[in-house]
Amino acid sequence: MPKVADSTIRRLSLYLRFLEEFEERGTATVSSDALAARGGTTSAQVRKDLSFFGSFGKRGLGYRVPELASRLRQILGLGGRYRVALIGAGKIGSALYQHHGFRDRGFDIVAVFDRDPQKIGHVWNGVPVADVAQLETILGAQSVDIAILVTPAEAAQETADRLVRLGIKAILNFAPVQLSVPHEVAVKTVNLVLELEALSYSLTNR
Amino acid sequence: MPKVADSTIRRLSLYLRFLEEFEERGTATVSSDALAARGGTTSAQVRKDLSFFGSFGKRGLGYRVPELASRLRQILGLGGRYRVALIGAGKIGSALYQHHGFRDRGFDIVAVFDRDPQKIGHVWNGVPVADVAQLETILGAQSVDIAILVTPAEAAQETADRLVRLGIKAILNFAPVQLSVPHEVAVKTVNLVLELEALSYSLTNR
Repeated sequence: MPKVADSTIRRLSLYLRFLEEFEERGTATVSSDALAARGGTTSAQVRKDLSFFGSFGKRGLGYRVPELASRLRQILGLGGRYRVALIGAGKIGSALYQHHGFRDRGFDIVAVFDRDPQKIGHVWNGVPVADVAQLETILGAQSVDIAILVTPAEAAQETADRLVRLGIKAILNFAPVQLSVPHEVAVKTVNLVLELEALSYSLTNR
Repeated sequence: MPKVADSTIRRLSLYLRFLEEFEERGTATVSSDALAARGGTTSAQVRKDLSFFGSFGKRGLGYRVPELASRLRQILGLGGRYRVALIGAGKIGSALYQHHGFRDRGFDIVAVFDRDPQKIGHVWNGVPVADVAQLETILGAQSVDIAILVTPAEAAQETADRLVRLGIKAILNFAPVQLSVPHEVAVKTVNLVLELEALSYSLTNR
């Protein structure tokens, strides 16, 4: 398969969200125009995004909702469930833990770590907050697919290195640093302050 | 000024973060190689990113840290302070409210709204949680620069429309929808589930 741009993957997720709404309402088919309107893009872009993955829909008839939804779930790897470790049990970590959207989409946080003795030992809905010093012991005994990293900046790279050595291939990083990882490890960085600074730039340079 | 890519603005924020660390340590100059290493990029990219905004540094001497930091703060519009309204006082909203990084970088959350009667009337560090029905009254009386939108998906577009009518020109959106706004309004969307789905895609298509 050709390398597909991150922006395409992002739109596939959005299309899937809309298709699932249509599924719930029992709508049988949807046009690329309707998908485009909900994804903030054009119908040509919808067709291009889907064309990476095969042939969908019929000219003039649109896409069959259950089929396209099912195919997108398959493309995005959303058939089963993912086991997720959360590193950092502060306010953001706790809010993420309680975020229903994750579990609803198949992402189960099964291990939580922190370095703060005041947090270690608390039990979050059956999951104990463990000492991050125990990362290797605990994640050696139970495999996880994805790590969510919510550590302070200065601890992020070292923690990422440990996760990589444990064989974890996907990291969602909230620490305000660019992580350096081997190319086979996927990293997505969410940096909230950077987003606000980009808005500040827009407000200043208009 | 030419249109500058979002990815460039993002790196400028990262460079500034590193420069401020150097400033604290009293380092007088920094090479583009050092900046590049910290930004996860190349020195050629550093020079290109900066070239949009003028001429910086001297060949062989590197960049003067306080000067470049000061210029980047100016480019990013980070001299003063921004007044921010938070719409949505749930778990994510509350974690954002308590996020020190925002205030440290000049973003002050001065108004908080929710539609849940159980939340309305609580006071967060001196800021009352107001009924979102009062958005126009309250934001009409005190101007804000930026809105952070943390509403459920179905309320997001309508709330964004109201913010736009109030003259707000910058929105940080956490709702899982693509907002449609006039082109003079800057929107940054942070969609945590989409980030996890992009990781799922990477794990599936390797």
